Amino acid sequence: MTGMVMDEPKQLKTVEELAALIGGRVSGDAQIGIDHIANIGTATAGAIAFVEDPKALESTQDCAASALIVPDGAGERAREVARKVPAIIEAAKPKLAFALIASALHPQKRREPFIHPTAVIGEGANIALTAYIGPHVSIGEHSTIGTGTRIEAGVVVGDYVTIGIDCVLHPNVTLYDGVTIGDNVVLHAGVCVGADGFGYVRDDVGYHKFPQVGTVVIEDDVEIGAHTCIDRGSLGRTRIGRGTKLDNQIHVGHNCDIGERVVIAAQTGISGSVTIEDDCVIGGQVGFGDHIRVQSGAVIGSKAGVLPGKIVRPGVWWGIPIQPLADYKRLNAHIGRLPEMRAELKELRKLVKELEEKLSAK
Amino acid sequence: MTGMVMDEPKQLKTVEELAALIGGRVSGDAQIGIDHIANIGTATAGAIAFVEDPKALESTQDCAASALIVPDGAGERAREVARKVPAIIEAAKPKLAFALIASALHPQKRREPFIHPTAVIGEGANIALTAYIGPHVSIGEHSTIGTGTRIEAGVVVGDYVTIGIDCVLHPNVTLYDGVTIGDNVVLHAGVCVGADGFGYVRDDVGYHKFPQVGTVVIEDDVEIGAHTCIDRGSLGRTRIGRGTKLDNQIHVGHNCDIGERVVIAAQTGISGSVTIEDDCVIGGQVGFGDHIRVQSGAVIGSKAGVLPGKIVRPGVWWGIPIQPLADYKRLNAHIGRLPEMRAELKELRKLVKELEEKLSAK
Amino acid sequence: MTGMVMDEPKQLKTVEELAALIGGRVSGDAQIGIDHIANIGTATAGAIAFVEDPKALESTQDCAASALIVPDGAGERAREVARKVPAIIEAAKPKLAFALIASALHPQKRREPFIHPTAVIGEGANIALTAYIGPHVSIGEHSTIGTGTRIEAGVVVGDYVTIGIDCVLHPNVTLYDGVTIGDNVVLHAGVCVGADGFGYVRDDVGYHKFPQVGTVVIEDDVEIGAHTCIDRGSLGRTRIGRGTKLDNQIHVGHNCDIGERVVIAAQTGISGSVTIEDDCVIGGQVGFGDHIRVQSGAVIGSKAGVLPGKIVRPGVWWGIPIQPLADYKRLNAHIGRLPEMRAELKELRKLVKELEEKLSAK
Repeated sequence: MTGMVMDEPKQLKTVEELAALIGGRVSGDAQIGIDHIANIGTATAGAIAFVEDPKALESTQDCAASALIVPDGAGERAREVARKVPAIIEAAKPKLAFALIASALHPQKRREPFIHPTAVIGEGANIALTAYIGPHVSIGEHSTIGTGTRIEAGVVVGDYVTIGIDCVLHPNVTLYDGVTIGDNVVLHAGVCVGADGFGYVRDDVGYHKFPQVGTVVIEDDVEIGAHTCIDRGSLGRTRIGRGTKLDNQIHVGHNCDIGERVVIAAQTGISGSVTIEDDCVIGGQVGFGDHIRVQSGAVIGSKAGVLPGKIVRPGVWWGIPIQPLADYKRLNAHIGRLPEMRAELKELRKLVKELEEKLSAK
Repeated sequence: MTGMVMDEPKQLKTVEELAALIGGRVSGDAQIGIDHIANIGTATAGAIAFVEDPKALESTQDCAASALIVPDGAGERAREVARKVPAIIEAAKPKLAFALIASALHPQKRREPFIHPTAVIGEGANIALTAYIGPHVSIGEHSTIGTGTRIEAGVVVGDYVTIGIDCVLHPNVTLYDGVTIGDNVVLHAGVCVGADGFGYVRDDVGYHKFPQVGTVVIEDDVEIGAHTCIDRGSLGRTRIGRGTKLDNQIHVGHNCDIGERVVIAAQTGISGSVTIEDDCVIGGQVGFGDHIRVQSGAVIGSKAGVLPGKIVRPGVWWGIPIQPLADYKRLNAHIGRLPEMRAELKELRKLVKELEEKLSAK
Repeated sequence: MTGMVMDEPKQLKTVEELAALIGGRVSGDAQIGIDHIANIGTATAGAIAFVEDPKALESTQDCAASALIVPDGAGERAREVARKVPAIIEAAKPKLAFALIASALHPQKRREPFIHPTAVIGEGANIALTAYIGPHVSIGEHSTIGTGTRIEAGVVVGDYVTIGIDCVLHPNVTLYDGVTIGDNVVLHAGVCVGADGFGYVRDDVGYHKFPQVGTVVIEDDVEIGAHTCIDRGSLGRTRIGRGTKLDNQIHVGHNCDIGERVVIAAQTGISGSVTIEDDCVIGGQVGFGDHIRVQSGAVIGSKAGVLPGKIVRPGVWWGIPIQPLADYKRLNAHIGRLPEMRAELKELRKLVKELEEKLSAK
């Protein structure tokens, strides 16, 4: 049957091959076979593990992996400590090397090109020959699906949607009409792109909907976590920049402009018309009022709150409302000393009273 | 094919027609054609834009829209500044006028009456002749779908559900058994109505489920954002009142009673048995303990926390736990002055010590 | 048609039968018939209600239920006050008794064994004969569905998934490949189990995905609220322990280990590698940094924030960052007295100045 998961031959590679992938230097048995990744603590034969910090080398004493990636220069020490590990790879950035080796050993699931007979394809839709369209998928009219893209069961794609090449849409994703998805984009289960933004105009009778007729553009190499919702622009567009990574259950309001290589942790909420420039890092459960600009390189701690209209300069920010981390810590320390301050104040009052009495007595 | 999106003739209206719609007064070329809405900054020929605040009129100097809505009395000034715009409409409430004109120019997507052959309709279900039921929709037994209602792909409607007229259920919505949806209700993608409330009784063994056998009633003209979840009553019902608007990813617990024309921003969480009376405005990421009553007209700022059992009177509230906004600001200012207070305290102590010494010396 | 909801004969039981179920003692008419549960305030004939606290007995004066569960020893007083109620049941724990009686009177919806013709079942999948598989469900290859398990419309189950017996998967749930679900597990609409955790390694170019090749194990008797997302382990597994109950819209990061009989309220977010030991109670909208250990018996209040790496000892915790509840209250009281402290400080400064002047004058 077509469309089935491809049973790829087990990925078995030699340490030499893996080291070559990441430009690492091997000591020990370079021909030993590796077929999976693991943690130092639970690794068994056939596994490769890694140590990022030379100080953590001591933890490898009982490691039973077949290979270990360690920092440049730590190879010799590693061979002394990790006596059970037959091969050591030195790499400039062990964690990065491990991640790259992991993708070679555990390649992403692939599907043969296929359109499942239960899928419903709208008129004028243009599906690449090498795409996979799973069961109960619905593709709207005049939408385009790029080569190698995989759309899993239950996904609903609206009309006039464009999806690039080599994307993965996990089950039950919803794309509203007219949105654009770049190449190599991963949308996890339940992601919703292009729902109406939250805008109303009030009169005496109640709320009238403010137009939500813009769109959403998601650029290449973006990954979006499960159940994250990205609203369409009211007028204009909402944008998620290239290489940006969003965690689960995030809310991105209408007309936001999220730059490139931005990382945002789970459950953060972003009101309308917020700009987050390139290379920012945002914690979880952060709340943004509308019309904020976060400048490139800013870091905002989890649970922070940013007031509407604010410009957030580069640096590390914390608290509700946000302050520079150092200020936040200082104020928190002061708050912690409040009981002590009260006691001092009381004592001082007593002293002054005594002085007064002494003075009167003179 | 039936069920397809209706290709409506392009909506082209004269400025005169649009002004008549909203009772506005035209100056300039009343016969010019308008076919879409836009922002001041990006508008081109054929677009209508608006200025809400007379002070913002200066921003229209380079505006290339074909028409501009401005506040009553600002027409003359607008004609002077916005020299490229051939027609000006004066209106009492420009933003509201713009919203109403937007719905005329960009009418909501419509579907021809249709039941997609992949839809599954339960026994005894009653689907209006003019309803649209999309691909892979599942309608439970004895459920009723009103005239003109549009149910998009992947929606699951339980048994004994009632949905009114002219509703839109976006993809992958879930309605549990027995819930009731009024007329003109819009449920965005992934909305979940009627899941069990969160109630258990603990004994020595663990948690036993407290009955969740009530229901949910959503009244007319409600709009609910993507992925918002509204739990069914434990006993009795959870209610969302007429004209109320909920943003994305909100949680409404069992037995809540949300009044009419309430607005709640994204990611707010409402525990069980909370009452929010008519015309309240609630920010994003607010948290409500259970058994709270928010009185009509109260406004609660984003990220606020309301303790269980609290009665929130009309006014503006802020903080965790909530306080009147003025108090919140005052206390925050005091907290900001803590370092200064400590310094003062230290100085005072020094002064007192000096006084003591002087006194002893006499 | 098979697969339909079973129309069970109306559950009508005598007070005597219900009392026997929970070991309660009846006074009044033990033969009266009861067919549903209700609140004190809204109960009518045929209903059973309960009073947990003897002090609340006075509220039963107008109660029109046919039976009332009251605490042991309160039967006599109940008969005096609740004059309209023909039967009283005394029970050690009335709320628990009520919950158990509720499950007898309102048994969970059942489905006849059935695989809907629109369901898509992967090769090698093993579906128990007594399972129910609803419309538009997709079951992956080599997955196992246990006896009596009910999978509602639109659910997507990946490959190599194991689901135990007597589970209920509500509509539009997504289970990624390889996850394991125990027995008697309830997953509400939109739940997502097994999406990739949020882990990347940064280099000069951007972010590289850190491997997310672990899995998720959900043990027996777990109930998970609508739209909650539980990410798979990066390496190893994420675990939800037996008897644990999660509310709606919770995020559980990769490699978390949530113990047995843990209760977590809505919208709480848990970063990666957090351990929450048995019998903890966690409020709503709480945020956990990564690598935290919450020790058995700890209670964390709503909206709290727990810093990464923290060990949370048993006791009640509150605030951002968390502190023991008593400390939190004390500090909050101090903060509330800040204006007063400032005034005192000012007064004291004045007094000292006066003293100085008097002293100089001598």
